[in-house]
Formats: sequence, C-alpha cells, structure tokens
Amino acid sequence: MPPTYPFLKGHGTQNDFVLLPDHDGSVHGDLPAERVAALCDRRAGIGGDGVLRVIRTSVADPSQAEDAEWFMDYRNADGSLSEMCGNGIRLFARHLVDEGLVDARGPIPIATRDGLKLLRVEAASITADLGSPKVLGETMVAIGDRSWPARHVDMGNPHAVVFVDDLSEAGPLLESPVHDTAVYPTGVNVEFVVRRGERHVGMRVHERGSGETRSCGTGACAAMVATAVADGRTPDEDLSYRVDLPGGTLTVTWSAGDEVLLTGPAVVVARGTTAL
Amino acid sequence: MPPTYPFLKGHGTQNDFVLLPDHDGSVHGDLPAERVAALCDRRAGIGGDGVLRVIRTSVADPSQAEDAEWFMDYRNADGSLSEMCGNGIRLFARHLVDEGLVDARGPIPIATRDGLKLLRVEAASITADLGSPKVLGETMVAIGDRSWPARHVDMGNPHAVVFVDDLSEAGPLLESPVHDTAVYPTGVNVEFVVRRGERHVGMRVHERGSGETRSCGTGACAAMVATAVADGRTPDEDLSYRVDLPGGTLTVTWSAGDEVLLTGPAVVVARGTTAL
Repeated sequence: MPPTYPFLKGHGTQNDFVLLPDHDGSVHGDLPAERVAALCDRRAGIGGDGVLRVIRTSVADPSQAEDAEWFMDYRNADGSLSEMCGNGIRLFARHLVDEGLVDARGPIPIATRDGLKLLRVEAASITADLGSPKVLGETMVAIGDRSWPARHVDMGNPHAVVFVDDLSEAGPLLESPVHDTAVYPTGVNVEFVVRRGERHVGMRVHERGSGETRSCGTGACAAMVATAVADGRTPDEDLSYRVDLPGGTLTVTWSAGDEVLLTGPAVVVARGTTAL
Repeated sequence: MPPTYPFLKGHGTQNDFVLLPDHDGSVHGDLPAERVAALCDRRAGIGGDGVLRVIRTSVADPSQAEDAEWFMDYRNADGSLSEMCGNGIRLFARHLVDEGLVDARGPIPIATRDGLKLLRVEAASITADLGSPKVLGETMVAIGDRSWPARHVDMGNPHAVVFVDDLSEAGPLLESPVHDTAVYPTGVNVEFVVRRGERHVGMRVHERGSGETRSCGTGACAAMVATAVADGRTPDEDLSYRVDLPGGTLTVTWSAGDEVLLTGPAVVVARGTTAL
C-alpha cells in the first residue's frame, strides 16, 4: 500500500467536497492538480465538486495570519485554484467546529484567497458572511443556439445571472455556457433563475471547472442580489430571499451594512484515509 | 454524532462500489434500501454504482455455507437486490485478499445470489469465473424514437446486446432503454457494442437500477459472448476478446469448458467510517 492520508467528505445543500486536513502543509505540499482531480473523480476516486484543504494561515498565507488561524485552500474539481466557495466555507466551518479547532460561540474567522470571511454556526445552520457584492453591467451568455441577457455580479468570484421563465429552458443538463471573455477573462459561474414568489427564487448553476452542480453558495448570493436589484430593492432594508437549488434550500440576506449572508445546512458524512 | 460504521470505496474499471464489512450481519441487519441509496448518492453520500456487503455465508445464506466462507450481498444504487455483479465480485475478492480474510494462492470461492463463484487474484489482475452463459433469442430495445435488434444473453442476470456502427448512436447519455417486459420481467442491462478489430470490441452499458455506468462486468461478458456467436466462434477454442469500456479495458475468455472468465484490475481507493 502507498502512504495514506486522511480525508473527510461532506456537503452543503449537496454541493459536495473532499476535506483534506493538512494543518502544517506537510502532507500535500503544493497539492498538485492531478491529486485534486483524482480525489474528485466520482468513479475512480472519492468524488466531489472540489477539495478544501484545511491548513494554518501562518503556513498558507502569512499576510492573513493575524486575522484567522485557519485558511481554506479551495480547489475546483479539475484542480484549478478558486478564490472562494460559499458552500465550501460553510462545510469548512462545520469541520473546524466538529473537530474543536475553533470556538463555535463567536464569529469564526477563516482566511481565503478572497480575504477574510466570518462564519456563524447555530446548530445545523451555518452562515457565511461573503462581504459586499459588486453589481456590474449587462452581458450575454449562450448555450448551443440559445442566448440570454445576463447580469454581471461579482461575489469575490465572477457570476452571470440569467432570468428565465422555466429552469428547463437551458436543457436537461447545463452544457458549458459561452461567455464574453473580455468581461470574464478567467471564466464565469452562470446562474439560471426563475421567480417562485415574493422574495423566493429557484435556480440552476453551471460552475467553471466543475460543470452543473446541485448547489453553489456564491451563485445563490449572486442570484439573490441580481433579483433584489431587478425588484428595485436596496440593501438598507436587511433583505432576505429564499433560494431553492436542486440540492436544497439556502437563505440569502443582503444586510443594511451591504454584506451578503449565506445561511443553510452543511454536514460531514464520512471520514477515512486514502492513497489517491 | 449518530453511531458510525466502517466502509471502503473501490472500483473495477471505474464501476465503483461502497464495500460494507458486516461479517456477522449485526451492523446492517436487513440493510434497508434507504441506507444503500444514501450511501450511493454521489452528492449527499459517498457515491457508487452499488453496495457490496461483506458477510459470512453462514449468516447470509446457510445453504451455501459449505462452499464459501464469504457471501457477496450486492445491492444496486437504488437499493434493489441483484443476483450478481462481475466487477463487484472482483473488487470483493480484492478486499478479501487485502484484509487477509482468504488465502489468495488458490481459487477464492465467493457465494452470491446466483450461486458459487470462483475468483483468481494475480497481482493487480483479478479473474472471476462467471459460469456458463445462456445465449437466447433476438429481441428489441428502444431509446426515444430509435430502436435496435438485440441479442438476449443471460449471465445469471439478464442482458440485451445491441450492435451499432458508432457508440454515440444511442445519444450523449444513455436514457433508460425500453425493453420487452415479457422477455425481461425484472428489467435488463443493455449493452451497445461496436467492433474495433479482431476479437476486440468497444461498448457502453445501461444497468438497471444504476443508469449508464463506466463499466459492467457481466455486461462485458454478455457483449463478448454475443460477438463470438455473431462471429461464428465456438467456446471449445478457449476464445479471448478485448472489451474496451469508458472506464477501462477488460479481457473476457469463453473457455472450452463453457465458462466465461472476466479479467481486469480492481482496487480499493479509500476506507473510513460513516453514519449515513
């Protein structure tokens, strides 16, 4: 048997991840893309929409070490780097609390490539403060012969939000949407959003590097923000919207302080060792 | 935390399974379909094409206890029972050898709902003797607007083998094929087969209860047998064919003794505990 290392698997509204505890960075070094892809392979590996390495900020990014003990080293399923992941960071916080690595009573600071994030854990529900959104211009996305106008929203990572009359409009499985590479030079996450009632939407999402997923936290936030703007609402009201995704339901609040708060469940379902 | 139990995950040519060690049957009792489905869920669970419970034959099926110490309690991903699984039983043998539960030097007897099977382990390659095939009549299968003639082959479980000119003929993802329920009252596994050379075929498979998978062992055997018959070959020659599947390559031998032997890799990639 080759050397093995620990892993955990969990999910937030079925956006699923392999967690890799590597507190001092000695287990995975620079964490090669090939290993991430092997872990995320749903047949030959463990399977996941991405990998969350659990590493001390002092090792991963000393510039943030004073703000947070733990750094979320997030990788997409194909091994590429990503700034942030809203469901991933909620699962990351769940893990830190489960393992007693942080004090769950107050806000939990977590360092990311998009800077410091604050998490709150209340029983099964975990809230991530994803900071201020940037509501940008109109753009276009296309799948096959169809194209749609989209709202460009930046949540630390780039999003294109499309309003549709029916979520099946984009096809049985979301193919890679074509986007304006001048607007999105590093790719884009695309949300298809349908209205379901007062402050209530449904959505599907195509994540760059992962394909269509059951849920995307920053995508739910981008969808909420674009909908609130379309509804003529302003954040000074402490707005909350319900967002239904294929994998479950999230609540997104746009606070009077212009912070976007993502709330929902996150759970670790398995733990063990692997040599992948 | 609820009570946890052990699991392993592995695959044979990317036909992947959750192994559940439960030697005396006390961990999982009658193993409810809901637990199997939760384990096989690729987002909210661990993920797999099926579950292989590792249980003593004396507990699972005393009538076979004299023939084999271990019984492969195989379940499809939806929790339904199945007679046999060619890649599953090869992974099952890999696990028994890895754990020192059997003597790997001789043939390894494993009891199944389709009776006794004999396995041989040689380094990374594991051969399952799947017994005599039954070559039955012609039937039809259909997907959407298309239909094809198919050869009915029984490998302990039912198969319909379709010859096509191109594996993409059946669509980007295999939808549930429609079959003759008089011929297949309990459903059918459908193989789409293309010729790639002398004693060499490629195939895709739709498994009842699991959908399209990366590989199916009994399906590879059924495809080989149907091709050999179409080629006018007889088993008295010790025929071997190469069968390429999306998840890897298997070798199928139809022996002079009318036994079908399935050979290829099988590997355990992770182990741990879960409370699913």
